[in-house]
Amino acid sequence: MELIDGKKISAEIKEEITKEVKAIKDNDGKVPHLAAVLVGNDQASETYVAGKEKACKKVGFSSSVYKMDEDTTEEQLLETVEFLNNDPEIDGFIVQLPLPGHIDENKIIEAINPEKDVDGFHPVNLGRMVIGLPAYISATPNGIMELIKRSGIETKGKNCVVLGRSNIVGRPVSILMSLNNDNANATVTVCHSRTKNIKEITSSADILIVAIGKPEFVTADMVKDGAVVIDVGIHRVKSDKTKSGYKLIGDVKFDEVSKKASKITPVPGGVGPMTIASLLINTLKASKKEIYG
Amino acid sequence: MELIDGKKISAEIKEEITKEVKAIKDNDGKVPHLAAVLVGNDQASETYVAGKEKACKKVGFSSSVYKMDEDTTEEQLLETVEFLNNDPEIDGFIVQLPLPGHIDENKIIEAINPEKDVDGFHPVNLGRMVIGLPAYISATPNGIMELIKRSGIETKGKNCVVLGRSNIVGRPVSILMSLNNDNANATVTVCHSRTKNIKEITSSADILIVAIGKPEFVTADMVKDGAVVIDVGIHRVKSDKTKSGYKLIGDVKFDEVSKKASKITPVPGGVGPMTIASLLINTLKASKKEIYG
Repeated sequence: MELIDGKKISAEIKEEITKEVKAIKDNDGKVPHLAAVLVGNDQASETYVAGKEKACKKVGFSSSVYKMDEDTTEEQLLETVEFLNNDPEIDGFIVQLPLPGHIDENKIIEAINPEKDVDGFHPVNLGRMVIGLPAYISATPNGIMELIKRSGIETKGKNCVVLGRSNIVGRPVSILMSLNNDNANATVTVCHSRTKNIKEITSSADILIVAIGKPEFVTADMVKDGAVVIDVGIHRVKSDKTKSGYKLIGDVKFDEVSKKASKITPVPGGVGPMTIASLLINTLKASKKEIYG
Repeated sequence: MELIDGKKISAEIKEEITKEVKAIKDNDGKVPHLAAVLVGNDQASETYVAGKEKACKKVGFSSSVYKMDEDTTEEQLLETVEFLNNDPEIDGFIVQLPLPGHIDENKIIEAINPEKDVDGFHPVNLGRMVIGLPAYISATPNGIMELIKRSGIETKGKNCVVLGRSNIVGRPVSILMSLNNDNANATVTVCHSRTKNIKEITSSADILIVAIGKPEFVTADMVKDGAVVIDVGIHRVKSDKTKSGYKLIGDVKFDEVSKKASKITPVPGGVGPMTIASLLINTLKASKKEIYG
């Protein structure tokens, strides 16, 4: 068994981006600029946004954060989105989710200029991805595809099973794995809460991508010998073996599944570190106008 | 074995639409109006557009056709699209494909106002479909879903295999079958030219949707006893048994597969007649502003 080291791969990506930004600066080009809009005081959201800012600084991007009150109206947020859509200094921006309940998330996402939608949540970017046109791919699916590509995993003609059909992970990654290009071309099955013969299906997978949101759902008896296993889940559970009294586990029972898998992502340190790297990739693409020309 | 009679089902849909249009007219409402743009002299395209016009007349819609020369420039076509986008009389319109080679089809499609994109080809409509938001679904996938629904075929938790991943049939229908709603919720596998173990996979299908574009590709040994088989293919081949010297066949070897299937679409008379019905459904939705409010 070989670990798919997301921490190492994401560090490599950041290193590549750092070099490219340095070259841009040396040529007096425009420094990529990512903005984040943060509404309210959700602790997890504040942590994520701070992490994104820190990553931007590290690779040499400019970054800015628009903090807005919890009681910001939908109209005020739409005005901010419009402002960022039109600000030539900003190459890409994200509106950190979740938003307060009185704001329609879909309405906000659809108001973002697709050309600056580095989160890849706008329907235009999803739709373009579906038909294989250049598009911003959202952070987690993009991160999974990078992990697979950079780990030298063959995908062409392989049976890939995706557990979960969420809009931000399962669905897009299932489409990406099935597209007609060199890093995809897998035969993909999407399983979900209504799937009946789940163990039979997962046992046929050469590549198993698990994004079902249930701690240690996938056990060894569900996995084929030699399969590649990508674990998107992350759960904080009590533990008497750590100093903090907690540990992080995934959707896969790592101890037993890792004995059968040929390659597997750990939790933490697998898919997680790739998400911010993906956002940086998209921001660089935005500043170079790679997607929309 | 029971035939899934697309001709009958599409006639029922047209009947329902006719009644609704009559009610709209009785209430002095706006009559739904579908426009079609036809560039060049492609014989098949002219036949399709004529068929669409005829169907519109039959259900009581207004319709109009914009015929443009083969040497129409991209810019001229974009101007026509813009004109139709802004004409309040037109509820929905299509630009008949294929377009002459000097025009970028994707550019034209992306110029159509998604709210009038009754062909459902605009990335916004595809993207909204992916995340389960209201969207115009393109004619063939929409027609397949209507056939399945109106034939009382249970989809929840069923294994559905889709052969083919085209942007206009295989990909969208695979997503639709897997969405979390009462007419879907199937466990879906998408097979394509790179799939290795295709017979093994098709043999596990409770519902087999074939859109692979190869005459009589699916044979009886690839199909499970009692499966539902939807055949999207249509091919004109020579025959010494018909007066014309030709006959139409599908992607499925009907004679032998029909003996194993519980329900199956014939070719012709299966999926084919549903496509125009789907376009009428979308045009009615457009005139009622059902999708975008």
